[in-house]
Amino acid sequence: MTDIPKTQWAQVFESHNGPLEYKQIPVPTPGPDEVLVNIKYTGVCHTDLHAWQGDWPLDVKLPLVGGHEGAGVVVALGEMAGQNGRVKLGDHAGVKWLNGSCLSCDFCEASDEPLCAKASLSGYTVDGTFQQYCVAKAAHVSIIPKDVPLDAVAPILCAGITVYKGLKESGAKPGQCVAIVGAGGGLGSLALQYAKAMGLQTLAIDAGDDKRKMCEELGARAFVDFSKSSNLVEDVKKASPDGLGPHAVILLAVSEKPFQQAADYVRARGSVVCIGLPAHASLKADVFSTVTKMINIKGSYVGNRRDGAEAIDFFARGLINAPYKVAGLSELPKVFELMKAGKIAGRYVLDTSK
Amino acid sequence: MTDIPKTQWAQVFESHNGPLEYKQIPVPTPGPDEVLVNIKYTGVCHTDLHAWQGDWPLDVKLPLVGGHEGAGVVVALGEMAGQNGRVKLGDHAGVKWLNGSCLSCDFCEASDEPLCAKASLSGYTVDGTFQQYCVAKAAHVSIIPKDVPLDAVAPILCAGITVYKGLKESGAKPGQCVAIVGAGGGLGSLALQYAKAMGLQTLAIDAGDDKRKMCEELGARAFVDFSKSSNLVEDVKKASPDGLGPHAVILLAVSEKPFQQAADYVRARGSVVCIGLPAHASLKADVFSTVTKMINIKGSYVGNRRDGAEAIDFFARGLINAPYKVAGLSELPKVFELMKAGKIAGRYVLDTSK
Amino acid sequence: MTDIPKTQWAQVFESHNGPLEYKQIPVPTPGPDEVLVNIKYTGVCHTDLHAWQGDWPLDVKLPLVGGHEGAGVVVALGEMAGQNGRVKLGDHAGVKWLNGSCLSCDFCEASDEPLCAKASLSGYTVDGTFQQYCVAKAAHVSIIPKDVPLDAVAPILCAGITVYKGLKESGAKPGQCVAIVGAGGGLGSLALQYAKAMGLQTLAIDAGDDKRKMCEELGARAFVDFSKSSNLVEDVKKASPDGLGPHAVILLAVSEKPFQQAADYVRARGSVVCIGLPAHASLKADVFSTVTKMINIKGSYVGNRRDGAEAIDFFARGLINAPYKVAGLSELPKVFELMKAGKIAGRYVLDTSK
Amino acid sequence: MTDIPKTQWAQVFESHNGPLEYKQIPVPTPGPDEVLVNIKYTGVCHTDLHAWQGDWPLDVKLPLVGGHEGAGVVVALGEMAGQNGRVKLGDHAGVKWLNGSCLSCDFCEASDEPLCAKASLSGYTVDGTFQQYCVAKAAHVSIIPKDVPLDAVAPILCAGITVYKGLKESGAKPGQCVAIVGAGGGLGSLALQYAKAMGLQTLAIDAGDDKRKMCEELGARAFVDFSKSSNLVEDVKKASPDGLGPHAVILLAVSEKPFQQAADYVRARGSVVCIGLPAHASLKADVFSTVTKMINIKGSYVGNRRDGAEAIDFFARGLINAPYKVAGLSELPKVFELMKAGKIAGRYVLDTSK
Repeated sequence: MTDIPKTQWAQVFESHNGPLEYKQIPVPTPGPDEVLVNIKYTGVCHTDLHAWQGDWPLDVKLPLVGGHEGAGVVVALGEMAGQNGRVKLGDHAGVKWLNGSCLSCDFCEASDEPLCAKASLSGYTVDGTFQQYCVAKAAHVSIIPKDVPLDAVAPILCAGITVYKGLKESGAKPGQCVAIVGAGGGLGSLALQYAKAMGLQTLAIDAGDDKRKMCEELGARAFVDFSKSSNLVEDVKKASPDGLGPHAVILLAVSEKPFQQAADYVRARGSVVCIGLPAHASLKADVFSTVTKMINIKGSYVGNRRDGAEAIDFFARGLINAPYKVAGLSELPKVFELMKAGKIAGRYVLDTSK
Repeated sequence: MTDIPKTQWAQVFESHNGPLEYKQIPVPTPGPDEVLVNIKYTGVCHTDLHAWQGDWPLDVKLPLVGGHEGAGVVVALGEMAGQNGRVKLGDHAGVKWLNGSCLSCDFCEASDEPLCAKASLSGYTVDGTFQQYCVAKAAHVSIIPKDVPLDAVAPILCAGITVYKGLKESGAKPGQCVAIVGAGGGLGSLALQYAKAMGLQTLAIDAGDDKRKMCEELGARAFVDFSKSSNLVEDVKKASPDGLGPHAVILLAVSEKPFQQAADYVRARGSVVCIGLPAHASLKADVFSTVTKMINIKGSYVGNRRDGAEAIDFFARGLINAPYKVAGLSELPKVFELMKAGKIAGRYVLDTSK
Repeated sequence: MTDIPKTQWAQVFESHNGPLEYKQIPVPTPGPDEVLVNIKYTGVCHTDLHAWQGDWPLDVKLPLVGGHEGAGVVVALGEMAGQNGRVKLGDHAGVKWLNGSCLSCDFCEASDEPLCAKASLSGYTVDGTFQQYCVAKAAHVSIIPKDVPLDAVAPILCAGITVYKGLKESGAKPGQCVAIVGAGGGLGSLALQYAKAMGLQTLAIDAGDDKRKMCEELGARAFVDFSKSSNLVEDVKKASPDGLGPHAVILLAVSEKPFQQAADYVRARGSVVCIGLPAHASLKADVFSTVTKMINIKGSYVGNRRDGAEAIDFFARGLINAPYKVAGLSELPKVFELMKAGKIAGRYVLDTSK
Repeated sequence: MTDIPKTQWAQVFESHNGPLEYKQIPVPTPGPDEVLVNIKYTGVCHTDLHAWQGDWPLDVKLPLVGGHEGAGVVVALGEMAGQNGRVKLGDHAGVKWLNGSCLSCDFCEASDEPLCAKASLSGYTVDGTFQQYCVAKAAHVSIIPKDVPLDAVAPILCAGITVYKGLKESGAKPGQCVAIVGAGGGLGSLALQYAKAMGLQTLAIDAGDDKRKMCEELGARAFVDFSKSSNLVEDVKKASPDGLGPHAVILLAVSEKPFQQAADYVRARGSVVCIGLPAHASLKADVFSTVTKMINIKGSYVGNRRDGAEAIDFFARGLINAPYKVAGLSELPKVFELMKAGKIAGRYVLDTSK
């Protein structure tokens, strides 16, 4: 194994909200069941900001190299990592939020690796993708076809998989209508495209004419502007194909209120799927109508390994177009500033060579 | 068609909380797709009290003959009601909450008759079973095998079907563990028995040693006394087979708090099923743990026609034993008093001949 | 109700393989739960030929007016047929294979109306759509949006619904690959389009370059020409996205052999769905590989009412384009001749005014 | 790690149908992700006979130590095998047919480890449990609660799991009726008990009054003696609760004919699940009735890891009683003789110390 340097560039922080240091650190060595991925590009996700700020009820490793949307090339295999032939040197691979899991607890055995109590989380409980060489479990990295550009695919590795999983969890069937709350944001625009590729009709909910235009271009059958609606519940129902409300609602919003309205406009027997994680937020719904409408309010976390492979496959077939801007890894602090200010449309992808 | 009198005894009220009049009224005539059932016994349900009090957000027919757990004999068939041979004169039949539905809307077509916008509700939007002769749609009455006692089966027609449906909706599989909140009450004791008959393990939650004893006799693998627990969430988890919490929670309680704790102790990927309808209550759950545990909070209303037939079949096979006391139809006001005072253990069944 | 004539033109036969008589017969009167539809256009299906020839193991009403893909206008309602507001005078409606069912047996209660033992079948056990005025159960006619052309939609009412149902029954999920055996025929070209609209990838199996071209234009990701393949099983596997075989196979062929190969090339855990009904044919599969691959061989019959509404909705949204030729109702014998000779590409639709 | 000898007793054969040698061989060393289990008891399964005879279309390792129902104590852990805490030294563990799988192919990722193309099979492609010390993948051994007797649980590790899996795959719901073909045999008696524990009603099909008696004692609601029936299809239907046939059929028979009858008596929409593997047998079913009854013919192989844990849990709760006789490991040839002669009722379990 030649060509793997001893040191590499990385973004590191020692304490929550402390300085982000762009510096050289040692290249890690993969364990027996791990691989080393030379990260070429990494997306920046809202979760990275939470990890740095430390405002989620889940402990963060410190000091930390953040990041969990890394796309690169496999450059080293632990002694057992290549055994089954799934991952080979030179493969293009993605490092995701789920860096690894035990693969043999009740949840892993049932393909629910994200629920594994021993899961390791990239850029959160283990070092992530804001570095040039990152370690991950061989069984967990995603294989990326070689004709897929590594910068473009990076946001799929978390944002894409997450919305795709949420759409699957919604139980909506091809032909049915799904409302996307926050459709004009980064997750939302991916959700609109995945939904369309899955044969679903979409009803976009967001604010402003720019977002309306974008949602319509991405195939939404209707757009409801919550900033202009005087009766959101009625307007969403009216915008659904038969006026009875959407079969499912995907909640990508980062504020609390939409969580509490969705139960009112979702169709009887429909699902409200929570994906976004506004800090300290609560779900709330009226018991009487939840029961008599038989609705279903559920949480969807990140995808499992199959979901990952499937979400990448939709992308590789050209059905998903995730808008992104490229910056250098060194510019992460600036990207965090923009993110905190709510000024990012689409996704930032960092080039680890800069 | 002989033997059908012109008048009959019934319990009628003209206004909410107004006097319950035990008096003679005309025997109704079934429409073309309806049957006339000579009600022998009728259960009394909490919902009957809500209908009389008018405290649910759903309009009640006035004046009203309440009741929706009626077991009796088919004595007349509308001209089309016998066409398909499903119901015959002399059959034993049950009149349920769902008196009828359109059978051709989106929901009815998908076997979700309880969600039909045009459903008629016995003892609520149409006259019910607190009378000797009751009309119901031929396609909706439940057929009761003739060797099943009509008094004993009455409470199955609403309470039994409802908890059975909730258990089905929970998605719990044979061998898994379901927590029953309010296990010591009337619905609860039915839920314990249906769960056992369905191959489920049960974890009973209620208060007091009498209820503990009853729940254990009904096969609960564990009992958690919420009146004695200093940490209900931990105690319920510990009482589940592997300490990770029950796979599902059935909420039969009539107070709000249990709705808000269940999401904390249910197992990851588990379901919280709301059945009880405390007035003005809200569901509430933390978004972060709902998402990261991928839990599912859902409402379950009454069963559809298949659920009804299945719930009766479990009963007919001797697997369910619903404790009840018999009183006369004339004694309904007294039963309502006991119910309001929370003094009924099990179910009251009224003999319409008294 | 004006404008309904006493007599009408119809195609009638008295005995199997006997003369098809184009003649005037009385206009029927709808029963209380039925509607009268003024058929404008009716498709001609292979099943109509079977009804005339009498070569299926299911008795046919004689004399018979055949046909079961009728699109027209509701011109009369039985006294109860309009009650629930689902069907109104002037509505456009489709008369399908399932003319009616009991709506209250075990199967109907579970939304499996096609399995109802008392189902009446248009153009088979009751008179069908090869006439200008046809009776059908109000709960069973399909509502057709008024902007949908009645000639174009006719083939959807049986062929479209049937392949759509089969695709649903296959259990294939969006993104997965479905092989369509007989992809170049009338049912096949509909199946390719429905599959695409449902987010599925398709692998077309048929013979000849014309069919290859058509299948590719309809979005098939691959075409396997069985007339040129020396190892069909290997070729189909290779043409699937990952070489492990398609997730499902839809069998539309009218010969027996494909039924026996599909089990060999379907992916482990995959489904082989039989739809076509070659006379006297048998399914056959090796027990060892069926078990160790855990495959699933199933039959799919026509759709239920929901399937019908959904299949029409896909069509109404412009996602399905079923090629057809129009002839006069009087020309039915000629169409049967062409069908027997295997000379029809696409579907014939008959104009009942000619 | 003390107490592990260098050599051990084992049953080995060098060629198909060649001599079974009971001799001392080296104790194997577990690889990094493997454990060493000191087998105390091992069941003998029909498959062991197939491995020895070499009559299945799947290559066997030679020379071979057979056996795949081994229950014992974990005495050594590979360096990574204890990492996640699932298996500990001293744990009681079961070695099953599935000795290991890759845990990261499409099938493993979807919890279908038995379909893994790289699965290793105990006593077939790797040495199995007819020895005192057996190696297996840490992620694949089943944990056995310490209060469960190791001799009694041995047959559960293959026979029990397999029938339990088949019942799950059947899709039959609690309360529904499942026919067990071959109910009086070893697999059959387990299937009757698992079905009952899962809330299913059972309809036993086998021959002879002894088997009738046993099946009735194990809770079968009906027994159909195929040796006395002049019309098996009608008799099975009549014996089902409503005369429409069982909701599912579990085929455990080792002859071909029952595979071809089941499709005729299974209820419409029902499942025929093939488990038994008669050599060179074929499934056969009439296309017309498969389609119009919408039945489902499927293969069920062994269980995945979750199924294994669940099947053991039912056993540990005292719901399953598998009759067995104990012999010494040295007596394997005699057991094979009895098996070939069809003279074993229940299961033989070998004590590896003798």
